[in-house]
Amino acid sequence: MTAPKVTSILAEWIVAVQDDDIPEEVRREGVRTFVNWVGCAVGGARHETVDAALKAVDAFSGPRTSGVLGREERLDVLHAALVNGISSHVLDYDDTHLKTIIHPAGPVASALLALAETRPMGGRELITSMLVGIEVECRIGNCVYPQHYDRGWHITGTTGVFGAAAAVGHAIGLNTTQMQWALGLAATQSSGLREMFGTMTKSFHPGRAAQNGAMSAFLAEAGFDSSLQGIEAPRGFANVLSDKQDYGEILDDLGTRWEAALNSYKPFACGIVIHPTIDGCQQIRDEIGDKVGAIRSVQLTTHPLVLELTGKTSPKTGLESKFSVYHAAASALIERDGSPTAFTDALVNRADIIALRDKVKAASDPSIHEASVVIDVTFEDGSTLRKHIQRAIGSRDVPLTDEQLNDKFTRQSELVVGEAKTGEILDAAWRIETLADAADVARRAAVGPVRSAAE
Amino acid sequence: MTAPKVTSILAEWIVAVQDDDIPEEVRREGVRTFVNWVGCAVGGARHETVDAALKAVDAFSGPRTSGVLGREERLDVLHAALVNGISSHVLDYDDTHLKTIIHPAGPVASALLALAETRPMGGRELITSMLVGIEVECRIGNCVYPQHYDRGWHITGTTGVFGAAAAVGHAIGLNTTQMQWALGLAATQSSGLREMFGTMTKSFHPGRAAQNGAMSAFLAEAGFDSSLQGIEAPRGFANVLSDKQDYGEILDDLGTRWEAALNSYKPFACGIVIHPTIDGCQQIRDEIGDKVGAIRSVQLTTHPLVLELTGKTSPKTGLESKFSVYHAAASALIERDGSPTAFTDALVNRADIIALRDKVKAASDPSIHEASVVIDVTFEDGSTLRKHIQRAIGSRDVPLTDEQLNDKFTRQSELVVGEAKTGEILDAAWRIETLADAADVARRAAVGPVRSAAE
Repeated sequence: MTAPKVTSILAEWIVAVQDDDIPEEVRREGVRTFVNWVGCAVGGARHETVDAALKAVDAFSGPRTSGVLGREERLDVLHAALVNGISSHVLDYDDTHLKTIIHPAGPVASALLALAETRPMGGRELITSMLVGIEVECRIGNCVYPQHYDRGWHITGTTGVFGAAAAVGHAIGLNTTQMQWALGLAATQSSGLREMFGTMTKSFHPGRAAQNGAMSAFLAEAGFDSSLQGIEAPRGFANVLSDKQDYGEILDDLGTRWEAALNSYKPFACGIVIHPTIDGCQQIRDEIGDKVGAIRSVQLTTHPLVLELTGKTSPKTGLESKFSVYHAAASALIERDGSPTAFTDALVNRADIIALRDKVKAASDPSIHEASVVIDVTFEDGSTLRKHIQRAIGSRDVPLTDEQLNDKFTRQSELVVGEAKTGEILDAAWRIETLADAADVARRAAVGPVRSAAE
Repeated sequence: MTAPKVTSILAEWIVAVQDDDIPEEVRREGVRTFVNWVGCAVGGARHETVDAALKAVDAFSGPRTSGVLGREERLDVLHAALVNGISSHVLDYDDTHLKTIIHPAGPVASALLALAETRPMGGRELITSMLVGIEVECRIGNCVYPQHYDRGWHITGTTGVFGAAAAVGHAIGLNTTQMQWALGLAATQSSGLREMFGTMTKSFHPGRAAQNGAMSAFLAEAGFDSSLQGIEAPRGFANVLSDKQDYGEILDDLGTRWEAALNSYKPFACGIVIHPTIDGCQQIRDEIGDKVGAIRSVQLTTHPLVLELTGKTSPKTGLESKFSVYHAAASALIERDGSPTAFTDALVNRADIIALRDKVKAASDPSIHEASVVIDVTFEDGSTLRKHIQRAIGSRDVPLTDEQLNDKFTRQSELVVGEAKTGEILDAAWRIETLADAADVARRAAVGPVRSAAE
């Protein structure tokens, strides 16, 4: 069976999309995606992974047109795309397309915002290009998932390069043939192995996808030609990197059904299996207020996987605490926190947190869904309270509200750039569609780290 | 079965190799590889593919420390590695490791010479690092070939990134752990699809491998960590990108058996199936001299594949003439040429060439080996001459002599930088092992194109 002309049809669509072709509810999710991405890039900016990347690439930077979010360093477009892509993923706190577990914004938004500082574009235009890139990325992901991922490919890297190429190609106005070349150049650079999970190289993947996708578009613009059928050719991306090729996932309802509208945002800076517990404990805290000091015991009932992955009873460091459902419950009850500040060395060793953590017990029950938890609190006076979380916030069933996105943004950004700057960046990010110059966001967000009062 | 610790053992070997550990005959082949690579990079420098690449990347260049061979433009180390890697491959005229059809020098030498302009190194040191890189590249190729290539991967790109990482890592003095990280970063960037053959993107592959491999080494040097087992892990390079993993090909006799010594050099700037005909016709010309004007007919007897691939009887352009065994025979008989000058628009339309070309007939015979040809010449006086080429020059059986390498170098280089510069560059390239500063070669070779008298 001959494959449909996937690359050609997709390229035609990419170059033709206009701002007003995208439904308002999709654009609205696009703005939320953008806000979440800015917060994560600023929030991750102080990580040692970003320090190491900057140390390596700084000497090779071209004209320093583009900011690194949450830092003072400036780099050329391609290297800024790389570093912002790294920092936005390094806390494992970014957005997720749940059908493919692609983290869509990193490769796409990192390339576009760096570009916006050299090729002026309006904020509405940036969101259009970003949504086009995310749509391309997620649809190509759907085409090959899960076999592609199962083979060992880190799908955020392998499909992200197409997303960045499409987004940048749209923004700089490639024609259809050039867009096909850009997709071909993306196909031939598609890479990223799951073996790298647990190392700095994991977050290198979305960064490099941003950089390589942008490079693909710039090469195509300069007349550097490539295959016109890089996605579907017998020796193209889908056949070489996957055992599954469902091209309908790429082409069906293109422009009417939007995968980009299905994006979701992690509310908490830790593995997703702890999220129901944090959500439930935060709700309990809202209900009991200061009575949190009168808790005698907390009993969690979870799916066995939760304890298998996060059963650490006495974490000593911030990193270890991300693998302790006990610590997560205590910090959610006392601090109402699941953001990066909930997983610091300081908090994990604070006496009141340890005291409450030691009152938390957990039991496994295979009949409970992985995404659920039952929390039974008993108070000193013998009274009890039960909270059953069916699905945690951040899931598609319970998406984060704008206020919750603000809270997530603020908590991580304040740690890096302080309160005043955080408010200013957050405001600009929400107003992106009204900005005449999208780069305003980059100029506000690319500021050096400050030590916040929280430290 | 658990895989041996391939990445770790290989990294230990890479960092430990000293100049004197490499046998003189291997070093000698290394110098020939280097000379051939310089000639090809200069020879390809004027190609439109290189123009397009430069147009795209120039605006993003960092400090312009490193030359583009055969051109006036200067770029940062990473971009110079990219562009020199492209130009050295763009004429399909570079070196070949015949067991894997890897073109080894492009990714490795392009990265090293660009580096030598910022981190001074002696010429002997450069050759050592180059041989280490080529060895790593070809051994990893042997480990996965042919299944890896058959799946659709362009093996020069996918293994070249390891070669460049190893070479640059050796040159900048990474320790073993850093070298493992660099190999991990190379593994996760390993890419390049055979679908791109026939487009500019094919020669992008060795260029990008050079750039990405160098970047892998610089990141590792800066403390950017990665998997310690990027080659052999269950989700590492060999398992994800190939159905075959023969780790003995990587580890056995490491340091005693040298794949780098098996490198070969194309004598002619066209597909390998025409090479026996050009070789034979050149030999005939040497024997008959001016009697070439008295030829009545030329009968070629070849394997059917030769006519299938190169059976074009009336080529009109230089590019078409590369697919005409008839033109190749005529230009070899009249001009004694198989270099890029034999495949120009001008030559293909010259009256004497056309006249002789039309006297060339070809017949297929499946009993003749693909690498052989029988040439029967009949002269106006009825006399005849038969030449049977079993294996053409450039094969492992009949390697190019140093004089033939010089001839190849000169013919392509003179077209780009003229006669005087060509002599100077060729001389410096042969003397590489004696140069206190390896960058001397780059400084001499990175000069703007001139129109030669031949045009």
